[in-house]
Amino acid sequence: MSIITLTTDYGLKDHFVGALKGKILSEFPEATIIDISNNIDPFNAAEASYIIGAAYKSFPKGTVHLIGVDAELNKENQHIAIEWNDHFFICADNGILGMLTQNSIPKKMVAINIHDRLPVDATDLDVFVTVAAHIARGGLLNVIGKEITAIKQATELQAIVADDRNSIKGYVIYIDHFGNVVTNISKKLFLEIAKGRPYEIPMIQRRNQKVSSPIKNIWAKYSDIANTRNYEVKNYEGDKLAIFNEAGFLEIAIFRSNPMTVGSASSLLGLGYRDTIVINFL
Amino acid sequence: MSIITLTTDYGLKDHFVGALKGKILSEFPEATIIDISNNIDPFNAAEASYIIGAAYKSFPKGTVHLIGVDAELNKENQHIAIEWNDHFFICADNGILGMLTQNSIPKKMVAINIHDRLPVDATDLDVFVTVAAHIARGGLLNVIGKEITAIKQATELQAIVADDRNSIKGYVIYIDHFGNVVTNISKKLFLEIAKGRPYEIPMIQRRNQKVSSPIKNIWAKYSDIANTRNYEVKNYEGDKLAIFNEAGFLEIAIFRSNPMTVGSASSLLGLGYRDTIVINFL
Amino acid sequence: MSIITLTTDYGLKDHFVGALKGKILSEFPEATIIDISNNIDPFNAAEASYIIGAAYKSFPKGTVHLIGVDAELNKENQHIAIEWNDHFFICADNGILGMLTQNSIPKKMVAINIHDRLPVDATDLDVFVTVAAHIARGGLLNVIGKEITAIKQATELQAIVADDRNSIKGYVIYIDHFGNVVTNISKKLFLEIAKGRPYEIPMIQRRNQKVSSPIKNIWAKYSDIANTRNYEVKNYEGDKLAIFNEAGFLEIAIFRSNPMTVGSASSLLGLGYRDTIVINFL
Repeated sequence: MSIITLTTDYGLKDHFVGALKGKILSEFPEATIIDISNNIDPFNAAEASYIIGAAYKSFPKGTVHLIGVDAELNKENQHIAIEWNDHFFICADNGILGMLTQNSIPKKMVAINIHDRLPVDATDLDVFVTVAAHIARGGLLNVIGKEITAIKQATELQAIVADDRNSIKGYVIYIDHFGNVVTNISKKLFLEIAKGRPYEIPMIQRRNQKVSSPIKNIWAKYSDIANTRNYEVKNYEGDKLAIFNEAGFLEIAIFRSNPMTVGSASSLLGLGYRDTIVINFL
Repeated sequence: MSIITLTTDYGLKDHFVGALKGKILSEFPEATIIDISNNIDPFNAAEASYIIGAAYKSFPKGTVHLIGVDAELNKENQHIAIEWNDHFFICADNGILGMLTQNSIPKKMVAINIHDRLPVDATDLDVFVTVAAHIARGGLLNVIGKEITAIKQATELQAIVADDRNSIKGYVIYIDHFGNVVTNISKKLFLEIAKGRPYEIPMIQRRNQKVSSPIKNIWAKYSDIANTRNYEVKNYEGDKLAIFNEAGFLEIAIFRSNPMTVGSASSLLGLGYRDTIVINFL
Repeated sequence: MSIITLTTDYGLKDHFVGALKGKILSEFPEATIIDISNNIDPFNAAEASYIIGAAYKSFPKGTVHLIGVDAELNKENQHIAIEWNDHFFICADNGILGMLTQNSIPKKMVAINIHDRLPVDATDLDVFVTVAAHIARGGLLNVIGKEITAIKQATELQAIVADDRNSIKGYVIYIDHFGNVVTNISKKLFLEIAKGRPYEIPMIQRRNQKVSSPIKNIWAKYSDIANTRNYEVKNYEGDKLAIFNEAGFLEIAIFRSNPMTVGSASSLLGLGYRDTIVINFL
């Protein structure tokens, strides 16, 4: 089985995603094509990086991930392909893969150089499709690109540990479909700094929101807030809570929220993209 | 061929659906994965039940239907798997399968009990994926669960026949993509009570809507309203009508409506979720 | 491999698309089913025609394209199947395929006549599924339909060349996911009339929009606007530009636009469906 995943900002109304799949199947009929997301915010590299980072590990090793966000070859962004953590990624060098791989060095990185082997009217995606099919068939990166030693690094805000190691300051990096607020504070960093100390996450009063008490627990899953005490589960609907989500990041949520009706962590707590979240150790 | 369908409230922007497919393919590479809907209203058991009920029969017997709506194991909802009408369903016991199966008893029902055989950080969906792959490979329900004799029953409003059998009162259970209004009055119940009598469906004047004349025909399909007389089809655009839809329920529609432009049955007739619809026999 | 594509106005919330795929797999388990778009504007034949026209060539020859837009058989629209440019299309004869094929005559056209061979409660889509599976298995069109010599022709506005051949007047036919504005002026027509002359595309001041200078270049791709001069690429964000898009049509765009935040060609230039765009040759 050869899986090729798609992460794009093309949306689902236009023909772009369908046409892309048609091109892949034309090149490589055996491909199993899976959408990760085609609703990335247009040209949003940080969002694309978070989504592909949260999803790729769920796929078998050797999967090829094609990222169609800000994919045009231009005088600043070359086309690249990398092998990292046993997966392959094809993208423009626009910061997405830099943010994804961060502190670890990919096993292999190439600047794609097949452009002049393709028909003169080939698009950027035709290049990606050719490369994806090549890799999915088991081809080597060196055949479609020239080895490089670095890719563009992220300029995104990083979570910061205070000098006295008594607090961590992070930022909101994503608001999900349920309106839950994902921060860039990782479980790994938290465990390293917390060393078993109690903590609280103050809810800063923002944008005319009500004052909200601090969060004192980070759960393993949403329902844990309701599993620990004797009330019925539905009594906890609307309560705020924190978990480390599947992607390994601190997430502030509202239990069983619905952004379309009762509201969500983002709307009720006034937390938006790049807002600050602090964990204070006591 | 082994088909696994997905019905979730995860939406199509986040990585959740893509990651779920990656996990399924990691467990069971031969799976054919089909989305039924990933846009179920968050935590809406009634909507999930209607959608899976309307779709499952279109799939081959033996298909495995994974339902990711309010799926967390908690102190009230165990994870269950059932065999019913030659299909398999995996869900939390949160009422969705109770509403789906209603008056008929599934051939087999088990409470999933493999949680302690999975890695300690396995999520609720990892459990569902393991069970789905097991069933899709032809495995028995008893291997992954303990037989049970009952699941949580529905508390949804039911259509009611008047004591004199001269009317049926039903409720709106779903508003579809075209803004058409689906009720819980089934064709089966209608035929049983109507016994060939003429009838009318009064349009109650709601929420500042215009007065609208009663509907006196329930068609087999939308175009029937235009097929019976001599005017051009386009002359009927915007007319209200009733049909029994593919799922077998009474549906109030506007011929060739567009909720984004001219309006729909829901917006023009003021009919929303749980509103009443009555059929009076004459 | 046998590919069946779907182009529908069913949306992605209801069960319709999932059920359609279930029916196809029940008839023809080997099918590879690819969504082109399920978000066609309801009953919009012009949009369906543009989307399928822009996508079909990306698929391998012999692909079967099922079009579920205004698909009900009625007294005006029969069900048809055609072979055109080595692809197969199944649709109601509602103008979509007339607009698609325009000035060229399909290799084969049939009026589907299998309706009375199907169960009495078969829907319009059951008919399409049966036909699609038949063709995908390599079956002949004559087996499922009666040959016809004409299909309904388009009534859409056409791009017009001025008598003096000094200008082309076209119309907006589609607004894409990025808010880019697609016109019906084809690259082919442009090249034929331009004969190397310089030109400009005046931006008519519409609906309280700001005055905007004329466009004097049609690029091959979006980034070309930034590749030609010495400024950083990000300096061009928000600039308007024109390209011939992949589908071969003149498109007015905003470089790296986001309709949800900074605005798009459609919102910023006030260009909507059926608005006029003129190219003046100098």
